[in-house]
Amino acid sequence: MTPVITAFAASPDRGRGLARDMGVRWACEEVGLDYDVRLVSFAEMKQPAHLARQPFGQIPTYEAGDLMLFESAAILLHIAERHAGLLPADADARARAIVWMFAAVSTIEPPIVEREQTGHAERDAPWYEARLPLLDARVRTRLAALSQRLGDADWLDGDFSAGDLMMVQVLRRLAGEALLAEHGNLAAYVARGEARPAFARAFAAQLAVFTAQSAAH
Amino acid sequence: MTPVITAFAASPDRGRGLARDMGVRWACEEVGLDYDVRLVSFAEMKQPAHLARQPFGQIPTYEAGDLMLFESAAILLHIAERHAGLLPADADARARAIVWMFAAVSTIEPPIVEREQTGHAERDAPWYEARLPLLDARVRTRLAALSQRLGDADWLDGDFSAGDLMMVQVLRRLAGEALLAEHGNLAAYVARGEARPAFARAFAAQLAVFTAQSAAH
Repeated sequence: MTPVITAFAASPDRGRGLARDMGVRWACEEVGLDYDVRLVSFAEMKQPAHLARQPFGQIPTYEAGDLMLFESAAILLHIAERHAGLLPADADARARAIVWMFAAVSTIEPPIVEREQTGHAERDAPWYEARLPLLDARVRTRLAALSQRLGDADWLDGDFSAGDLMMVQVLRRLAGEALLAEHGNLAAYVARGEARPAFARAFAAQLAVFTAQSAAH
Repeated sequence: MTPVITAFAASPDRGRGLARDMGVRWACEEVGLDYDVRLVSFAEMKQPAHLARQPFGQIPTYEAGDLMLFESAAILLHIAERHAGLLPADADARARAIVWMFAAVSTIEPPIVEREQTGHAERDAPWYEARLPLLDARVRTRLAALSQRLGDADWLDGDFSAGDLMMVQVLRRLAGEALLAEHGNLAAYVARGEARPAFARAFAAQLAVFTAQSAAH
C-alpha cells in the first residue's frame, strides 16, 4: 500500500524545503517508495483528528495501513529498515548510521532551532542583540566538532546513509548563513546532499505544493 | 564481550542520575546486560582519545569490540535491538516505541535543556527574569501535549519500552519542579519508571561513582 504523509498546506518556509516533511520525501525518493500527501492547515494541525496522528500538532506523519508514525527521524528509520539504500548492511555500520540520525536531531539541531526561534519570538526584545553571540556560540561549538569529525570525507561514515540525510536536512536550516560557511567542508557536505537526484525530486515535490497553493490564493 | 560505557568522573548533578550515562545503565539493567564503566574527567573529555569516541566531547559512549557508539538514545536502541525487554515483538508497535525515543530527545528535551542552560549561562543577565515565562511556556506546551496523549495509561504505547525509558529519563530533568507537577499523570509516569528495579540498580551504580569520588577528594 502507498503510505500517506502529512505536510503543511502553507509551508512557512515558502517552499525552501526546510519543513520536516522534506526529509521524509527525500528518504522515499532515495529508496524509490511512492507516497501520497495529505496537506493540513495550521488550524487543522491543532484539531483532534490531527492530534490523534501527531500529539504535538506538527507535521509530518506517516500512515501505512494501521500504522501511524510521527517524528521525521523515526519515520526515516522505519523507511530505511524496510527498503535498501539508506542503511549499511553491516550491523556495526548500521548502528553508527543510526548514531548520526540521533546526533542530527538531538545534538546539532537544538541550538540551531533555539537561535531560529529567538529570531522569531524575541526580535523586538531589548536583549535580542545582546544574546545573539551566545546563541551563535552554541551553534558554532557543535558545527566545529562536526566539521572536525567529517574532515575531508564525503559522508559521515562510509556511504551516504539515513544519518547523512538527516544531518544535511538539519544543516540546511543554516543555508546561506555565515555560521555554516565558516566550515567549508560542512557547506560542501550540504551541497553534496542537495546534489542527489532523490533530493531534487523531493524538493520539487514540496515546492509544487507551495506554488499551487500560492496560485490558488 | 562486556561492553564499556563512559561516564563523568565527577558528575555535575552530584549523583542524581541526570547525566546521560544513566539511561544507558538503566537499559543495560532492564535487559540484564553486564557493562564496565570508564570514568572520564572534564579535561579528558576534550582530548583526542575521547573525541575519537565522541566527536562532541560528551558522555556516554558505548564500546563493544570494534564498535564505538555515542548518543544515548542510539545506544539504547542498539541494546534494545539485541536483547529482549525494551522493544515490542510486533513490528508496528516496535516502530511506535522508536517514535517515542525520538520524541523524547528531539521534541521534549530541547526546551527543557534550553531552560536549564539559561539558568546556568544567563542567571546574572539583566533579561533573565523577563525571559523565564517564555522558556517555561515552551516546556509547558510540550508537556501538556504529552500529558494529553498519555492520559491514564501506564506507559506511552502498551508495555514499558525503550521509548518510555528515554522519555522518563528526559522528564527526570524536571524532577521537583512545578512544571512537571502541573501534570499529575506525568509525575506519576516518572515515578512509575523510577520504581522499576532496573532503574534502582542503575541509579545506585551511578551514585556509587559520585560517592567514591567525593570520598577520595
